[in-house]
Amino acid sequence: MQHLNFSQSSYHHLPIIGYHHSPMMDKFGIPRQPNLVALKSHIEFVTPFDNPDAFLGIEQYSHLWVLWQFHQNKSQPTFHPKVRPPRLGGNEKMGVFATRSMYRPSNIGLSVVQLDKLEINHHKAVLHIIGADMVDKTPILDIKPYIAFADNIANANSGYMQIPSIKIVTFHPKFNQKIQDLILNHQITYDDVNIIEQLVAQDPRPAYRQHEVDNCYFMRYKNLDIGFFMNQHHEMVMDDIKMIDLSK
Amino acid sequence: MQHLNFSQSSYHHLPIIGYHHSPMMDKFGIPRQPNLVALKSHIEFVTPFDNPDAFLGIEQYSHLWVLWQFHQNKSQPTFHPKVRPPRLGGNEKMGVFATRSMYRPSNIGLSVVQLDKLEINHHKAVLHIIGADMVDKTPILDIKPYIAFADNIANANSGYMQIPSIKIVTFHPKFNQKIQDLILNHQITYDDVNIIEQLVAQDPRPAYRQHEVDNCYFMRYKNLDIGFFMNQHHEMVMDDIKMIDLSK
Repeated sequence: MQHLNFSQSSYHHLPIIGYHHSPMMDKFGIPRQPNLVALKSHIEFVTPFDNPDAFLGIEQYSHLWVLWQFHQNKSQPTFHPKVRPPRLGGNEKMGVFATRSMYRPSNIGLSVVQLDKLEINHHKAVLHIIGADMVDKTPILDIKPYIAFADNIANANSGYMQIPSIKIVTFHPKFNQKIQDLILNHQITYDDVNIIEQLVAQDPRPAYRQHEVDNCYFMRYKNLDIGFFMNQHHEMVMDDIKMIDLSK
Repeated sequence: MQHLNFSQSSYHHLPIIGYHHSPMMDKFGIPRQPNLVALKSHIEFVTPFDNPDAFLGIEQYSHLWVLWQFHQNKSQPTFHPKVRPPRLGGNEKMGVFATRSMYRPSNIGLSVVQLDKLEINHHKAVLHIIGADMVDKTPILDIKPYIAFADNIANANSGYMQIPSIKIVTFHPKFNQKIQDLILNHQITYDDVNIIEQLVAQDPRPAYRQHEVDNCYFMRYKNLDIGFFMNQHHEMVMDDIKMIDLSK
């Protein structure tokens, strides 16, 4: 990653302690906040941070904070104070510090995830998590336990972000047929189909295109390209599924 | 800050966007988690991050995440996988990623605070906050809104960190007399006394000394040194208060 160039600023330098491994191979389709879709993924740590001792006692927590790097951001040579949040339709601008936008000076993402299990594999720690909103290969900067009495603000007011935005999902008959074939051939599981449905319900299309009807988009999940579109009733229609050769 | 030297690691570099200003001049006495004491403080931002546009819309949130730097840490040339959390009495060890210990590879602290108000002062943004667990002059790395539907995990299990540890506080008669004099001379307010009481209730003494009886400690708040000790009934006794000359 290159340095931003803010001449009056000091810098903090911190090591990348591990990398995220997820069925979400591309940014497109990833939920816009953590903890919305029960997507399973895991984090492998870099030596010396993979030492199992560093995770001693972590199983007593149900949830963890993950601090990570928006590593796919294009570099921004100057500071942009305002961004266009997808939830506001991509037209209205807000201050970057009033959003969770990826385009921020720190390039640091913050996600609460559920702890699935700690695995020790050849004396190295692997953390299995549920609900991450991070793409495959995301660099990890820190893991901290979620401490309910401090972090859980029952009466927090989140303005326009009060409730998640979810759309109804329907399955096209030809999609159903393809899914059945893939399940029979053990190329996909019912769990996968359930996760894919939840991902599509988030409506991953860019904010400024969320009024487009009948225009098909593809989302990559594992070695599958999932086609979907929004119909005239504003339902997301699962339309197509294609296996792809990731070795190419 | 100097680089840690982990030969196999890559690094992330991020700018310090501002500095925290707090009545808590020293680390000793700061609550061990955010949001426990309604301590008021503020953050001044560094150019160009002080641009008011970068905070547009932030008033719609009641709470914010602050990412900050543990800048007073002594540098650690090697990675220490285990730490001794104060809540476990300072004897038992846990993995650093299973704690909020300041001694972690990232040196990044994460605190939820209440948003008091955004002030624009000479076209520069100043964020007034409540409940920070950061010392005066702490470098700030990022501000993000608290989004309840993602961050508020109602059923989170936090192991031994289920409830905050609070002690009963009593006022020694000579302390009461000194407080009355300071209030009459407008050198302290009832709000200050209330905050100081809450800070002492957290028992700021080091974990391995939390069984000491009658041993007096001093905590610095603004230009005051506050003396307190634990009595035989395990109550915190507010014992002394001294004005100090910060210009020396």
